[in-house]
Amino acid sequence: MRVAIHQGPVDALPDAVRAAGADLVVTAEMATTGYHIGARTHELAEPADGPTAAKMSALAKETGVALAYGYPEADGSRVYNSVQLVDATGRLANYRKTHLFGDLDKAWFTPGDEPVVQADVAGVRVGLLICYDVEFPELVRAHALAGTELLVVPTALMSPYEVVADTVVPARAYESQLFVAYANRCDVERELTYCGRSCVVAPTGAVLTRAGSGPALVTAEVTREALAASRLENTHLADRRPELYRGTTA
Amino acid sequence: MRVAIHQGPVDALPDAVRAAGADLVVTAEMATTGYHIGARTHELAEPADGPTAAKMSALAKETGVALAYGYPEADGSRVYNSVQLVDATGRLANYRKTHLFGDLDKAWFTPGDEPVVQADVAGVRVGLLICYDVEFPELVRAHALAGTELLVVPTALMSPYEVVADTVVPARAYESQLFVAYANRCDVERELTYCGRSCVVAPTGAVLTRAGSGPALVTAEVTREALAASRLENTHLADRRPELYRGTTA
Repeated sequence: MRVAIHQGPVDALPDAVRAAGADLVVTAEMATTGYHIGARTHELAEPADGPTAAKMSALAKETGVALAYGYPEADGSRVYNSVQLVDATGRLANYRKTHLFGDLDKAWFTPGDEPVVQADVAGVRVGLLICYDVEFPELVRAHALAGTELLVVPTALMSPYEVVADTVVPARAYESQLFVAYANRCDVERELTYCGRSCVVAPTGAVLTRAGSGPALVTAEVTREALAASRLENTHLADRRPELYRGTTA
Repeated sequence: MRVAIHQGPVDALPDAVRAAGADLVVTAEMATTGYHIGARTHELAEPADGPTAAKMSALAKETGVALAYGYPEADGSRVYNSVQLVDATGRLANYRKTHLFGDLDKAWFTPGDEPVVQADVAGVRVGLLICYDVEFPELVRAHALAGTELLVVPTALMSPYEVVADTVVPARAYESQLFVAYANRCDVERELTYCGRSCVVAPTGAVLTRAGSGPALVTAEVTREALAASRLENTHLADRRPELYRGTTA
């Protein structure tokens, strides 16, 4: 399957989706509203089946392309930092960020409690995480053990944290033997400058494609054959010794 | 404290230790005998308090410098791939590799069963791992949770696995908020070419020093103040949600 990352404003998403020639297009954390928007986070929050979901589903239906996008999710009085996956048939999966990042997140969001949310796209098992979540190797490991083949990670990574996009994300792909599509913002919101550098990384640790610091549409091929070949060579999942790690989940 | 990595033949170690101006000098996996040496692994194996330990302890006593070195450890009929830490007072700690790497390890070694082995050097809590062990984030996490401040990792990393030295090791330092000293070989043994690239990485993910592909002596400053400052900024250890990772240690 072909995965694309749209790194840029949500207004440009429909044209990007039509142009990408991809099976799945991923865009950033809180792509639909902006991330660092203070009290507007709550004003703009919508249920998972709200009007934004309808618009995204219509775009997926028009193009035949699956979409993963970040948005503020309202559920009763609670608001979650969520990513939703839709395709031509409608809503496939919805994940609520479990690891909130500092005051930026904690001021507005309730943390989710479900670590592994997945759905199939074009024959590939896709898992969903958001931004800071991917910095926790245990969570990516949980995905690999649950069968995730392509981990999709909308993010809002700001300077000077380029180490996450450049180093941590490739390490995750290699150590847990899965593909990772890491989709960042590249704009400025108040004092925050997002650093772009969206990427798709193979389970060998090879960076298949990487955006720069400005708007970009990058694509890469994700295949179960390449995953199987990498797992044959890099046997980390089989070589784990869970009994030695018990203290880390006590 | 000042940590140095001796990347090169064990014959050159005494001069390197005298020249390093360090509190601790780390050298590679199986530094004392060679790594890819077939049946000689068993012929050359020694108890943890054998003649090699006496020689290393004498060097530590002469120089006042602590040493961490890899060697094949005999214990009854078993042989372990071990690293020992000695200082001017004698043997401080001995770690047996828990994650054996493919046939290269499995043909000759029994795996260790103790994940976290530590000792204090110059006021810093030092933990020990070996090569493939560091590719498992759970094990490094166990060290961080147990108080390791500087993780010392003798290794025998061959081409084309540079991704481990360049990407995985810096990710470990950042995600688990500790210093890592990764000490590789740079020679050729039969079909294996070790890739050097030994490094000391800070908990910010910054590479403080990195060797090239040939013999080298590299040093870096490791302080508890720098560690505390990084942990204040990068709150990964406090932000973990172990209850969500239970499936990874079941």
